Amino acid sequence: MEVEDKLVQKEKAIDTELERLLSRGDSLLSQAMRYAVLSGGKRFRPLLALSSGECFGVDQDVILPFACAVELIHNYSLIHDDLPSMDNDDFRRGKPSCHKAFGENIALLAGDGLLNLSFEVLALTLLDKKLILKKEHVIREISCFAGVEGMIGGQFMDITLSPERVSEEKLYELMLKKTGSLIIVSVKAGSILGNASPSQIEAILNYGKNIGLAFQIRDDILDSAEDVLENHLSRPNSVSLFGIEEAELRLKHHVNAGIRALDKASLESDELRFLASKLLSLKEKNENE
Amino acid sequence: MEVEDKLVQKEKAIDTELERLLSRGDSLLSQAMRYAVLSGGKRFRPLLALSSGECFGVDQDVILPFACAVELIHNYSLIHDDLPSMDNDDFRRGKPSCHKAFGENIALLAGDGLLNLSFEVLALTLLDKKLILKKEHVIREISCFAGVEGMIGGQFMDITLSPERVSEEKLYELMLKKTGSLIIVSVKAGSILGNASPSQIEAILNYGKNIGLAFQIRDDILDSAEDVLENHLSRPNSVSLFGIEEAELRLKHHVNAGIRALDKASLESDELRFLASKLLSLKEKNENE
Repeated sequence: MEVEDKLVQKEKAIDTELERLLSRGDSLLSQAMRYAVLSGGKRFRPLLALSSGECFGVDQDVILPFACAVELIHNYSLIHDDLPSMDNDDFRRGKPSCHKAFGENIALLAGDGLLNLSFEVLALTLLDKKLILKKEHVIREISCFAGVEGMIGGQFMDITLSPERVSEEKLYELMLKKTGSLIIVSVKAGSILGNASPSQIEAILNYGKNIGLAFQIRDDILDSAEDVLENHLSRPNSVSLFGIEEAELRLKHHVNAGIRALDKASLESDELRFLASKLLSLKEKNENE
Repeated sequence: MEVEDKLVQKEKAIDTELERLLSRGDSLLSQAMRYAVLSGGKRFRPLLALSSGECFGVDQDVILPFACAVELIHNYSLIHDDLPSMDNDDFRRGKPSCHKAFGENIALLAGDGLLNLSFEVLALTLLDKKLILKKEHVIREISCFAGVEGMIGGQFMDITLSPERVSEEKLYELMLKKTGSLIIVSVKAGSILGNASPSQIEAILNYGKNIGLAFQIRDDILDSAEDVLENHLSRPNSVSLFGIEEAELRLKHHVNAGIRALDKASLESDELRFLASKLLSLKEKNENE
């Protein structure tokens, strides 16, 4: 099967599971949670998790709930990021953002509900005792990468660092935390569940970090080309720090470094390579969101 | 030792552990999280958890992280409840609410950070294999009671139900979800970890439900007596539905029903009795928050 067909199959499995996880209830709150998660999004993180799992010989059924938990966390963070007190974004994936469609209070609770649901999903994985120690390990990793030392810490840097005075080092820390955390833990999950060797884990982490950086730099490039709201451009970002040409060079550098990391550890995965290479395309905004 | 002294000792253990859990970092985000959790609050839920654990013979060290995880969840919900798009409360425990002290965006992230931290704490309990199956069970219970079917579902009912048209049945469902959920799961945690019999678990759940209802009715009575903001009084509540006298009768009824549930199952716990009886005192607003 072609790599793109394999990814489409994985995406279907992810969407089916997300729909199942979000199927309960018909309240406005449940609707808001479904609206946020099930209307678009290319499932970049869960695809990375499933592809990494496959690369390390993990059954898809085993890694699927972890992949979906990360996607739920990603989507809660988008809802809260879009709120007026944060980025104040009226649109997300070409549709009204959650608070525009459901009101601020319900969007707030929908975000809380998705974060909580991700941990309900993780807690339920413990019922099946297959690979239990590794599952516990992945749960610890996800809770840590999603938290104040990880993604939330990156969101905090994003709203508090001065874009005029941000250093290259701080910007990289911001990008690795805010965007990298969930991408890194997605591929790490596969390596943990698949009993990877230390050098393989190092390689997949190296891949994850570079892909996380590439993802954010690509986002900055696309943002800078679009007619975006001023509050976005006034946030620390790679294009305003490095200029557009240097940002494009860095995007290529990190994609290539990510792929080289796989090569160096002889990790065979057409899908991980494909997902990385796709970041070089600067056509469609939001295609990987 | 007197019951009050025993509770003071437990409170110290809880506060020490919460301080430890929140000790990392000196960013404004970390400060906001500490501000919300460590400035007041009588630790009602974690005291219930520790007292229930003791009643069922659970080591304090075993139940302490679960008790603290519930308290972190409680405090994140208060931060988000206070936000302008929710209750718009400028004060909490006699001090500026988190968003008044740190800004809305940081308060939002501080709430997210506390919810995430609670799950980091729960995930770490899995490292110690003592009572592992029961720990997993408690984690599932906490994640479920905190979520859309539990506390968050109650918050949603609170902001969407019309106070003029709310039925007694709906109000009880609201109170049980919004306020009862974390109180019920606190005492349930002790019974699960302590290997309680089904009839004992039924009794402690009965206690938890009644204490949760009593807690909320007491809160409504105190709110109605205070010069509170209009948006509070315009929410569905027991005083506006039943009138003050009937609300006070119901408060007493639920406290007594909770204590009777313990008696019926021969559960000896001066502390659980004391924590219930304290709800009859209508002096200090916020004393148990």
